[in-house]
Amino acid sequence: MPIEGARLLADLAALRGFGAYRSGVHRPTYSPIDMQSRHWLAARMQEAGLAAEIDGIGNVIGRDPAAGPRLLLGSHTDTQPEAGWLDGALGVIYALEIARAHRARGLPGAVDVVSWADEEGHYASFPGSRSFIDDFSDADIDAAHGRHEARSLRAALAAAGLAARPRARVQAGRYLGYLEAHIEQGDELEAKRLRIGIVTSIVGIWQYRIGFEGVQNHAGSTRMAIRKDAGAALVRLAGAIEGRFAEIRAERTVWTIGRITLSPGAASVIPGAAEMLFQFRDTDPAVLARLEAALQELVAVSDKGPCRTTFKALSRSTPQRMDERLQAALERAAERHAPGLHQRMPSGAGHDAQQLARVMPAAMLFVPSIGGISHHWAEDTAEADIVLGCEVMADAVEDLLAAP
Amino acid sequence: MPIEGARLLADLAALRGFGAYRSGVHRPTYSPIDMQSRHWLAARMQEAGLAAEIDGIGNVIGRDPAAGPRLLLGSHTDTQPEAGWLDGALGVIYALEIARAHRARGLPGAVDVVSWADEEGHYASFPGSRSFIDDFSDADIDAAHGRHEARSLRAALAAAGLAARPRARVQAGRYLGYLEAHIEQGDELEAKRLRIGIVTSIVGIWQYRIGFEGVQNHAGSTRMAIRKDAGAALVRLAGAIEGRFAEIRAERTVWTIGRITLSPGAASVIPGAAEMLFQFRDTDPAVLARLEAALQELVAVSDKGPCRTTFKALSRSTPQRMDERLQAALERAAERHAPGLHQRMPSGAGHDAQQLARVMPAAMLFVPSIGGISHHWAEDTAEADIVLGCEVMADAVEDLLAAP
Repeated sequence: MPIEGARLLADLAALRGFGAYRSGVHRPTYSPIDMQSRHWLAARMQEAGLAAEIDGIGNVIGRDPAAGPRLLLGSHTDTQPEAGWLDGALGVIYALEIARAHRARGLPGAVDVVSWADEEGHYASFPGSRSFIDDFSDADIDAAHGRHEARSLRAALAAAGLAARPRARVQAGRYLGYLEAHIEQGDELEAKRLRIGIVTSIVGIWQYRIGFEGVQNHAGSTRMAIRKDAGAALVRLAGAIEGRFAEIRAERTVWTIGRITLSPGAASVIPGAAEMLFQFRDTDPAVLARLEAALQELVAVSDKGPCRTTFKALSRSTPQRMDERLQAALERAAERHAPGLHQRMPSGAGHDAQQLARVMPAAMLFVPSIGGISHHWAEDTAEADIVLGCEVMADAVEDLLAAP
Repeated sequence: MPIEGARLLADLAALRGFGAYRSGVHRPTYSPIDMQSRHWLAARMQEAGLAAEIDGIGNVIGRDPAAGPRLLLGSHTDTQPEAGWLDGALGVIYALEIARAHRARGLPGAVDVVSWADEEGHYASFPGSRSFIDDFSDADIDAAHGRHEARSLRAALAAAGLAARPRARVQAGRYLGYLEAHIEQGDELEAKRLRIGIVTSIVGIWQYRIGFEGVQNHAGSTRMAIRKDAGAALVRLAGAIEGRFAEIRAERTVWTIGRITLSPGAASVIPGAAEMLFQFRDTDPAVLARLEAALQELVAVSDKGPCRTTFKALSRSTPQRMDERLQAALERAAERHAPGLHQRMPSGAGHDAQQLARVMPAAMLFVPSIGGISHHWAEDTAEADIVLGCEVMADAVEDLLAAP
């Protein structure tokens, strides 16, 4: 199924105009510019012959009126602050282009298109796709508040004009599966001179707040032997994690200390309290469990030292395997368009596909990120790679719908 | 020379009323309440028969009109935010009480009293005592800005009504020496059940900003092997410092990481930059130099790793030995009042005495701090210890002036 590369690039360029920031975009979920881009997208879906709807959580859904076996394609158009122009927008415009091409050629089956609300988590963790699979209740909406903005999700939805709209829910059996394209957000494809990644699984992200309670005191008159330095305890635990995790990691395990706070944070004061945000990711639940057990042991050792050490899990998401049949269809299409220039690989980042995978077969396709840059306005992908990715996905869609 | 304990405690209690905060005080230098306390102190000096002056940097100086050999006694009355009621106030009221008792008995020689401005460094490092010894120029005043307040030292002096006043300078040969009393700010005297500390030397404080430059990236899609994680580099260096300093420290060496910052400081972002404030203290210049050399080596090792590591000395103060003859006088007096309940010990904190020691013999006396608490409103010292400390210092003053 041939897609029109020029039309694809033109739509991506038009979407980039909503919230342009340097060479990237700034389009936080439910902001006025984000809502403008959703209405623009719904109009493009209508033009393509889809029945478009913006639902009560902000999902933009375009339903193909054709009958027959059906796939759902999409990603998200909201962005991190001052972030890249492609990220999820790429997958949404791929879906639009493929639905358009599919309808234009009158091929068998149907393609629905979706842009999920708030994949970037400005208000909650995947509220759009979780709402669609019935895993985000009204109580969850009530409880959610902005992470960058001082307003509730309810207030944001009302301001966006979404308060009175119903939320769309997936109909059981409607779809053969879900396909999502995204930029890689890493440099692996580029480093290996490959052009397509086929995602095997999406990592689980386990995240913790680790707290240290010591005794704040004078940094001159308090001898080392009697100190209860919460900062020193944090540094010791962080070093121990580094050593232990390097021993027990799996091949793709990653871990990150994203934030450290020492209180009160003055040069001549021994920190009386300290805190770190720590997370690790892997695609294997057994590896995640092993890492958490090790972390718990190390925290217990620290807690026996001079500073009380506490440990709170902030989230433990489940890794999701991508569907083998969908992966095989993407791989065959990739081999036709770019022989030998594709690989299977896990996704180290979370995506809406991990939510959809809980209720239907799901798979993802990656295109290379230049320099591996992601969540930054400088993020980019070569035009030829953008077009190739869409061609591969379009062929996989045609195959799957032709032989459901 | 008997002092009047009740009068001493009453004056300390009256001074505590300026800026009372819970059981402590909040009296930042040049604040309205700080200036009120300085005028109150000047009035108390006048009542004691001293010629009182508040000079152009805020030093409150009371000069004894008597002739003969002369000692300078004092400390400071400004405080850290929400800090203890004694700290430097103790030494200032000791000086006032001793000058009063000395004049009342018509003993030989003279006692001048001083409260140095801004020992707590709200605007600069020891500007009051350094101004007095001619080590704080008009250019230094021009360059100084508030650390907690958004105004310049010039603006603060003007608001405090000090702009037009001359700054007092020490007259060469006027003093036999300088004596300062202070709370210990540690728990050593208490732990050893001692009641008086005689300071042998004041530590040098060497302080650094250590910066790490890595590459900010996605905490999921960036493999461990290619990361340039500035936070991980910081944790490694902090751990290496801990190990190395423990090997090469002297008995009383202390070191502290007071602040750590990771940028941007988000859970799912690999820190692209990190910074720590690090300081160490010792009374021996050779030890300080050895520690800095070790730090420099460790920074160089870190700099050869994935993150550029830079190192900037923020201050390197010189340790000051206290005068042996003054120490001996304090020790004899301590032995008379509290036989066997005193010791010689270094000061881990900085004091104005280290500035005065550059131009005249200087010494310090410590009284115990309950629980070692300092720079916190809960700081306290037993009344009996407060009175005893003043009695010991008064006797030492009498001895020194009787046999100059």
